[in-house]
Amino acid sequence: MIPAFEAHHDGSPLYVPDGRPSLGDEARVRLRTPAGGAVVRAWARYLEDAEPRYAPAERLGAAGGWDWWEARVPVRAGVTTYRFLLEATPEAADDGARRLSWLNSAGQWDHDVPDAQDFRLTVASGGPSWATGAAMYQVFPDRFARSAAADGRPAPEWAVRAAWREPVLATGPDVSRQLYGGDLDGLREKLDHLVELGVGIVYLTPFFPATSNHRYDAESFRRVDPLLGGDEALVRLVEACHARGIRVIGDLTTNHSGEAHEWFRTAFADPDAAERSYYYWREDGGYESWWGVPSLPKLDWASERLRREFVDGPDSVVAHWLKPPFNLDGWRIDVCNMTGRLGDVDWNRDVAALLRRTALAVRPDALLIAESTADATRDFQGDTYHGSMSYLGFTRPVWGWLTGGARVNYFGTPLDGPPRIPAEQFVAEHRAFSAAYPWDVRLHSLTAIDTHDTARAATVMVPGGQDVAALLAFTFTGLPVVFAGDEFGLEGTNGEHSRAPMPWGSVVPRDLRGLYGRLASVRAREAVLREGSLRWLWAEGEALAFVRELPGRTALVVAARGAGSVSLPAGVLPVPEGVPEVAVGGLRLELADDGGARLASDGPAAAVWFLGGPALPPAAR
Amino acid sequence: MIPAFEAHHDGSPLYVPDGRPSLGDEARVRLRTPAGGAVVRAWARYLEDAEPRYAPAERLGAAGGWDWWEARVPVRAGVTTYRFLLEATPEAADDGARRLSWLNSAGQWDHDVPDAQDFRLTVASGGPSWATGAAMYQVFPDRFARSAAADGRPAPEWAVRAAWREPVLATGPDVSRQLYGGDLDGLREKLDHLVELGVGIVYLTPFFPATSNHRYDAESFRRVDPLLGGDEALVRLVEACHARGIRVIGDLTTNHSGEAHEWFRTAFADPDAAERSYYYWREDGGYESWWGVPSLPKLDWASERLRREFVDGPDSVVAHWLKPPFNLDGWRIDVCNMTGRLGDVDWNRDVAALLRRTALAVRPDALLIAESTADATRDFQGDTYHGSMSYLGFTRPVWGWLTGGARVNYFGTPLDGPPRIPAEQFVAEHRAFSAAYPWDVRLHSLTAIDTHDTARAATVMVPGGQDVAALLAFTFTGLPVVFAGDEFGLEGTNGEHSRAPMPWGSVVPRDLRGLYGRLASVRAREAVLREGSLRWLWAEGEALAFVRELPGRTALVVAARGAGSVSLPAGVLPVPEGVPEVAVGGLRLELADDGGARLASDGPAAAVWFLGGPALPPAAR
Repeated sequence: MIPAFEAHHDGSPLYVPDGRPSLGDEARVRLRTPAGGAVVRAWARYLEDAEPRYAPAERLGAAGGWDWWEARVPVRAGVTTYRFLLEATPEAADDGARRLSWLNSAGQWDHDVPDAQDFRLTVASGGPSWATGAAMYQVFPDRFARSAAADGRPAPEWAVRAAWREPVLATGPDVSRQLYGGDLDGLREKLDHLVELGVGIVYLTPFFPATSNHRYDAESFRRVDPLLGGDEALVRLVEACHARGIRVIGDLTTNHSGEAHEWFRTAFADPDAAERSYYYWREDGGYESWWGVPSLPKLDWASERLRREFVDGPDSVVAHWLKPPFNLDGWRIDVCNMTGRLGDVDWNRDVAALLRRTALAVRPDALLIAESTADATRDFQGDTYHGSMSYLGFTRPVWGWLTGGARVNYFGTPLDGPPRIPAEQFVAEHRAFSAAYPWDVRLHSLTAIDTHDTARAATVMVPGGQDVAALLAFTFTGLPVVFAGDEFGLEGTNGEHSRAPMPWGSVVPRDLRGLYGRLASVRAREAVLREGSLRWLWAEGEALAFVRELPGRTALVVAARGAGSVSLPAGVLPVPEGVPEVAVGGLRLELADDGGARLASDGPAAAVWFLGGPALPPAAR
Repeated sequence: MIPAFEAHHDGSPLYVPDGRPSLGDEARVRLRTPAGGAVVRAWARYLEDAEPRYAPAERLGAAGGWDWWEARVPVRAGVTTYRFLLEATPEAADDGARRLSWLNSAGQWDHDVPDAQDFRLTVASGGPSWATGAAMYQVFPDRFARSAAADGRPAPEWAVRAAWREPVLATGPDVSRQLYGGDLDGLREKLDHLVELGVGIVYLTPFFPATSNHRYDAESFRRVDPLLGGDEALVRLVEACHARGIRVIGDLTTNHSGEAHEWFRTAFADPDAAERSYYYWREDGGYESWWGVPSLPKLDWASERLRREFVDGPDSVVAHWLKPPFNLDGWRIDVCNMTGRLGDVDWNRDVAALLRRTALAVRPDALLIAESTADATRDFQGDTYHGSMSYLGFTRPVWGWLTGGARVNYFGTPLDGPPRIPAEQFVAEHRAFSAAYPWDVRLHSLTAIDTHDTARAATVMVPGGQDVAALLAFTFTGLPVVFAGDEFGLEGTNGEHSRAPMPWGSVVPRDLRGLYGRLASVRAREAVLREGSLRWLWAEGEALAFVRELPGRTALVVAARGAGSVSLPAGVLPVPEGVPEVAVGGLRLELADDGGARLASDGPAAAVWFLGGPALPPAAR
């Protein structure tokens, strides 16, 4: 597989030079095709009121082995989908006949394809630019750090108190009761650690009072758990973070509350209570809940009152925490894919639209990320959340490519670990699950190598694999996210087991602070990693390579998963000069006289180089 | 490409043995995988409230070289999507590692894929069973036949009168004015011809008064054009058809009316008229119209009054023609994909749902087909129209495979004819554009080799290609449709040019009445062609083969596009005994001792054999 010679387009500035369009605009969209006349005509095909139209592309000129083309696509709706139709010379076709191909966001096809993976132009405002340059750091408050005040707090009735160095449970009834007593002041006292790592965003899993250590079963969405230090501790934490240039986002469950939630207790006790409308009551006296778990009653978004209370307007829960004195910088929404959906009922988009409107009214540069456990593309079309927290486009393929054969929980599937996949499949899966996102959603979706809901990369991957995965996450499209403890090489076989307390003062499995700090610093510095095109150059079994590109700047990323060497034909890789900016695992890149390349390493390895920008014809500059 | 050894599932009785489920059911879904233990575990993966769930499949046993599996999928919504996850033995995997694959409606994949092409279980009632066994015959009334009464009718002002044998225009301003004066009594007088062809459904393009020969610019939806004989002629026609066991469907434009329509004239003249709400008025005094053509003002489906007048309830236009005395058997909806869509406005689904409810209330076994010029799958999910009239899943690929290099209008693309494609691509395109239909929608969608809107198959295809295409259309999933004149081998380079008057009493290019009659008769007789599974056996360049299967019955279809021979490995084709039921072009199928096969022909050729049903293990019978 040599995608280096595929035609390419994406939503980045090289290809959509005027940026986000407005309704009524004609957006210029550019395309590169391998030079030499193989492609003789090209069109942008777009839909207008669901009817296909074709806009001819003009050839702007050739440079660096590529022809560049430009077409104009009228923007008449919030989301405009388009793709390209390419016609090659008869000589370029295998069987001597005219050959057509289609280019959509998933790649180049020799046959016509459905619309689902077309490119997208969107008019709604995109995610905040501060987010794409910031390393996100995920903190599970009970497990990060304890302040002195934590010692004085009695454990609640439901909790099983654990000492900080006690092993974390992976399974069993006490998994969600094991309470280590981390708190927000504890985190605040460790902010130097975050600064050292170059963290730009702290993503806090829920801080609401609850009857579990994970707090996804909120008792209230209006108070910080006193066990974490209460509202004042959150104010102190956010102030301290902001003083260091670190943003903070919270975690909100819109699919359900806890059964101990004040709304649910009222609604359950009194059928005439206004809160009754917040939940789904069955005829047998029961109620709908997440996965049938009674402690997590499902919210009914048909309720106008719930909407006002939770997501709609300046007094809602969503707005409450974004305003002073809390000043959160955004939200991560839990179980977004199920929110508002029950059988044929579907309020999902309504909830998302209200939540977005409320959040951006209170804080125009808020970041809104939402969890989606399956194909997320239909729910993320640029006018709801800025990005997704999904595992399908990056986490799963990176696990599969770098797996060491560990038996771990594999994203709710019945499998006992990731299948080992070649690099081609990494690319195919990434494309399959990211193609239908608008470009800005790709830039604002999380690229996690693990989270509080998964096994740890160090457990899943071959030795050294985590380093390669981290380098990929920080050089990919999307927001790189580090789950606290990754920087110490912590292990874990499932989400619960991965939530081990931070090993402050202990010998750690590996000290990766330097690597993460370097990656964060490079990402903060290099616009090309934040906003540049992503174009695949190579993917075959053991090795992969891609470039991120902006006018004037290229990042070349090469990775290998094992010991050995791989030869690449001439013309695939640009020629990096000097040593890579960041490298892990000792990748050796040797260029042959004919322009070919040989990658060699003794184990998992990856590197990123920065080069000049792509050659462009004058009309495309 | 040897899909014979792919795992398979579809919505037919072999794989969904209990038929259409109801809400609350657990639907049994069956799967076949190549026997021999390569697949060791399988699951159905379905979505519940957008969350993935896995139901383990039980192995029912092996028979005829296949393992059969069964899983149970809970049906909790109108449309339930699912696919299968297959785990093979390490030995079966290429690199010795565990190998997973996914089976969705588009085929088997070595990597995870988005949800768009999952299988679908639907609870809404499907299309009428009378439709799938009936050959559909498309009549363009002005061009079919003239009764004696037609001679006495003066041509309207807009018309350019043409003598019956005058050549039809392909381009220019008079294309839609050229009036040959065919009428409904003329058609009625020719019903013996339809009976000879085995026609089961007449699909009439519009019969409304208009200012064009195609009548898609209706002046009224409440009257039959007097030029066609008026309302009484339609009553006579439908009665005569019904007396012969032939159904009749009409053609309704829900996207726009003509500018001469009584609604539009009233609305244009009087800004206070109630009909004003039926159209989109711009601030500059203009109005929205189809493709910006002012003679076709676009209907605004926000209007409740328009809904009541046109599609909602027993007094609506939709109901009017399905009731006595007209008794139409259904509708074909014109420009369905654009209907109700303008920028971000989208009433499409509302219109479809109302139209369906109205039609089925008046005539529970009505057939509802709707035109869609692009990817139709999102609009056809079983709860709107019964099937689509789309060119992407069959017409375009069959043109591309059998093209003779003709330069013809190619479905509104900027290309001057179909690209020549190999058989693999025929299969890929068909799968791409039919996978996301529920099974019943596939069975009720039109498989046309040409229509009044396209070039004629005889012009597009190599000599003899039309015969192969017709055999494929009649043996495929979907409703085969013959555009009147196909049976005489008429030619045409675009839709307008293809609307030549029927060559009654003339020497015809080719007489294919016998072939079409045989195909219609076989289809009417064989349930396996109407409802059977479609499973691909082979597709490579010059040849393709598939089976339709029901318990107890198999249809084997083999086709080749050119002179030469193709060898197939052992096990691909079942062994047909004796001569084919229908054959065109002299296909010779020779079976080798090792079970392999050799197809040979002197040109385009195809054949269908009927065999016993697939071997099934006892538990799957």
